[in-house]
Amino acid sequence: MSSSGGSRFDAVDIIRAKRDGGELSDAQVDWAIEAYTAGEIADEQMSALAMAILLNGMSRREISRWTDAMVRSGTRMDWSGVGRPTTDKHSTGGVGDKITLPLAPAVAACGAAVPQLSGRGLGHTGGTLDKLESIPGWRASLSADEMLDVVRGAGAVVCAATEDLAPADKKLYALRDVTGTVEAIPLIASSIMSKKIAEGTGALVLDVKVGSGAFMKDVTSAQELARTMVDLGTDAGVRTVALLTNMATPLGLTVGNALEVRESVDVLAGGGPEDVVELTVTLAREMLSAAGIDGKDPADALRDGSAMDVWRAMVTAQGGDPDAPLPKARESHAVLAPVTGVLTDLDAYRVGVAAWRLGAGRARKEDAVQAAAGVELHAKPGSFVGGGEPLLTLHTDEPERFDRALEILDGAYTIAPSGARPDLPPLVIDRVA
Amino acid sequence: MSSSGGSRFDAVDIIRAKRDGGELSDAQVDWAIEAYTAGEIADEQMSALAMAILLNGMSRREISRWTDAMVRSGTRMDWSGVGRPTTDKHSTGGVGDKITLPLAPAVAACGAAVPQLSGRGLGHTGGTLDKLESIPGWRASLSADEMLDVVRGAGAVVCAATEDLAPADKKLYALRDVTGTVEAIPLIASSIMSKKIAEGTGALVLDVKVGSGAFMKDVTSAQELARTMVDLGTDAGVRTVALLTNMATPLGLTVGNALEVRESVDVLAGGGPEDVVELTVTLAREMLSAAGIDGKDPADALRDGSAMDVWRAMVTAQGGDPDAPLPKARESHAVLAPVTGVLTDLDAYRVGVAAWRLGAGRARKEDAVQAAAGVELHAKPGSFVGGGEPLLTLHTDEPERFDRALEILDGAYTIAPSGARPDLPPLVIDRVA
Repeated sequence: MSSSGGSRFDAVDIIRAKRDGGELSDAQVDWAIEAYTAGEIADEQMSALAMAILLNGMSRREISRWTDAMVRSGTRMDWSGVGRPTTDKHSTGGVGDKITLPLAPAVAACGAAVPQLSGRGLGHTGGTLDKLESIPGWRASLSADEMLDVVRGAGAVVCAATEDLAPADKKLYALRDVTGTVEAIPLIASSIMSKKIAEGTGALVLDVKVGSGAFMKDVTSAQELARTMVDLGTDAGVRTVALLTNMATPLGLTVGNALEVRESVDVLAGGGPEDVVELTVTLAREMLSAAGIDGKDPADALRDGSAMDVWRAMVTAQGGDPDAPLPKARESHAVLAPVTGVLTDLDAYRVGVAAWRLGAGRARKEDAVQAAAGVELHAKPGSFVGGGEPLLTLHTDEPERFDRALEILDGAYTIAPSGARPDLPPLVIDRVA
Repeated sequence: MSSSGGSRFDAVDIIRAKRDGGELSDAQVDWAIEAYTAGEIADEQMSALAMAILLNGMSRREISRWTDAMVRSGTRMDWSGVGRPTTDKHSTGGVGDKITLPLAPAVAACGAAVPQLSGRGLGHTGGTLDKLESIPGWRASLSADEMLDVVRGAGAVVCAATEDLAPADKKLYALRDVTGTVEAIPLIASSIMSKKIAEGTGALVLDVKVGSGAFMKDVTSAQELARTMVDLGTDAGVRTVALLTNMATPLGLTVGNALEVRESVDVLAGGGPEDVVELTVTLAREMLSAAGIDGKDPADALRDGSAMDVWRAMVTAQGGDPDAPLPKARESHAVLAPVTGVLTDLDAYRVGVAAWRLGAGRARKEDAVQAAAGVELHAKPGSFVGGGEPLLTLHTDEPERFDRALEILDGAYTIAPSGARPDLPPLVIDRVA
């Protein structure tokens, strides 16, 4: 007795079924995604359904079908013409997480093709495309043919997704953002995986961040998200592995777009901070293993310059000048260590928000970011700091931004008496395969 | 770190609080209703909030504040100029529920003023205004001044609510209808009570229907709804009582607009079916008692013609001709009892849907209804039926509607061998004060 027109299903019936704890059939899921993409299910109906999913959950079959329907809402890319196994990485987002920049070249230097469709930052976490855009001339938007050319020539491409890649997810993601329905594991997992499956990679390594600077604050929910995504990848024929990695403190010594490119180039030149190198190599080995490639060690590719060669080719192919000087901020401000001792804690979330407030991030999708703004770290948890010495340096083009950045940094770190040995979590916390 | 503009609250924060099982503050509730009415909270945000309320509930304080905020979204009517205590009744909706028609005049005849702002039917339950509109000339829409004149002159008015009566509820009700968020006791109770409180009645009797033809199918949820509404009325200074009454079978012997007006006039003339008379008198006594009026029995008002006098004055004051013949359907079709015996069951929901399909009801707010369509009952549960004799007569102007009405009536009744004594529920099941 519903008032639906001539369609096979009725939006209200589907909302009610999920609301009352039921499982949606494959046909109901397919119709919901199709009808929402086509505008036949209204935003207010989809948001009620998203809230019911958030509160009542979804079975593995439902999530898998939901993801598949989002993939089918657009085109699935095909890299078979590249002639090399494809492999990719996705991070759930962290502070100072520039790993893609040294990682994609290192993996390509070892014989895989890396077709990474990436995103921009929102809130306190940075976006890979924002970082790369601080390189003069570099452009994120490529056609499908251009992407293929870059991968063929350089071995890796990092660029923006085309409009027809999982359009249902694009629409749903924007809706979830304004309706308090972001924090649902079935919806997070299907959003990430629909894009990665549509991207067409044959193997995928997920870097699921855990800690204050991450979306997942505790190991248990990070494990659940990792397990859900690995299952989705497997169901879709993508060889998928997840690592849970520490995001209690920023990665490396820089947070901000150009600052992170500089640090990435250091890593590609065989140097750079220990944690960035370790995570790059660990993820690269997983990516190569998932793609069935052995015989070459990505740690060597960083040392012998072959990863740097891929980086230069990749940047150049996308219009960037790898030798051009990176933008520098007009103003900087040092935060001094108040006492001498051991830095036991430097909160990733607060540093991320500080970088955002300095201009490195955006609050709305349409906002611009500053290339040079951000935070430089002069110490990492576990290391010695001298009282009165710089602990952090803040960078921005707009000095009026310092106050609000300093406000969030108040209480962001702890310095214990010299000799203290803080109990620091490992960089890689768990592995889900 | 939300991206809200300059407003005091952020819609996403409020949705999240309720989603995570929290209680909303008075200020949050006030802002949510104000901002939604003003269009600052979008439909997709309110529907996510409504789903979170449906699944996580609301405290008594929250429901009370939510109701009050909806009342304050418009004007609250003032009947102090009438010079008599005001009292009203609200039914949660049933099949054949024409009680308002004899009730308002009977109560007014006993000295109270009855200012009833009523609604139209949707789905299988009829609406009081639809019924009255089958009287030639009668109009539902009056200005506030006209309402006051009718109550002053006739003692009672039954008409449509003005646009500025709880506008937040109007908007929210339309949204809930398309987002699977109708069936939430806090939202049902606040919707009903915001309108009745804004109507300005001093006393209120709630007729909470229970059974297949009602919104509440079981006594427990009907009790919860009744208790919630009585609390809301009390919190708002309205003397409120609720009766739970049986809606397993239709009320009276008619279902349909003009058919029910005819039956109501029979009751006002001192006749009519026993159950309609009993419920009218019971509710009338509750309404008078809640208004603090004693000394006159509404059963007498039905017998001595004083209720009929009010009816005629009320209909006339709203442009209707109480002596005009009521519309008759062009076609009718008799459903014959297949065997001789005792009718033990006649399902209210199925009869309601049959009347709807014959044209008495509407699927969408903007649909028109047929004045003369509906179902006549020739027997009630507990009474004898002769095999081959008419059990029901179906009426419609469009004979192509008979098939689908007959379809839903298949299995709508049970006839037991003569001598069987069905266990029938009482008309009044419970009282909540």
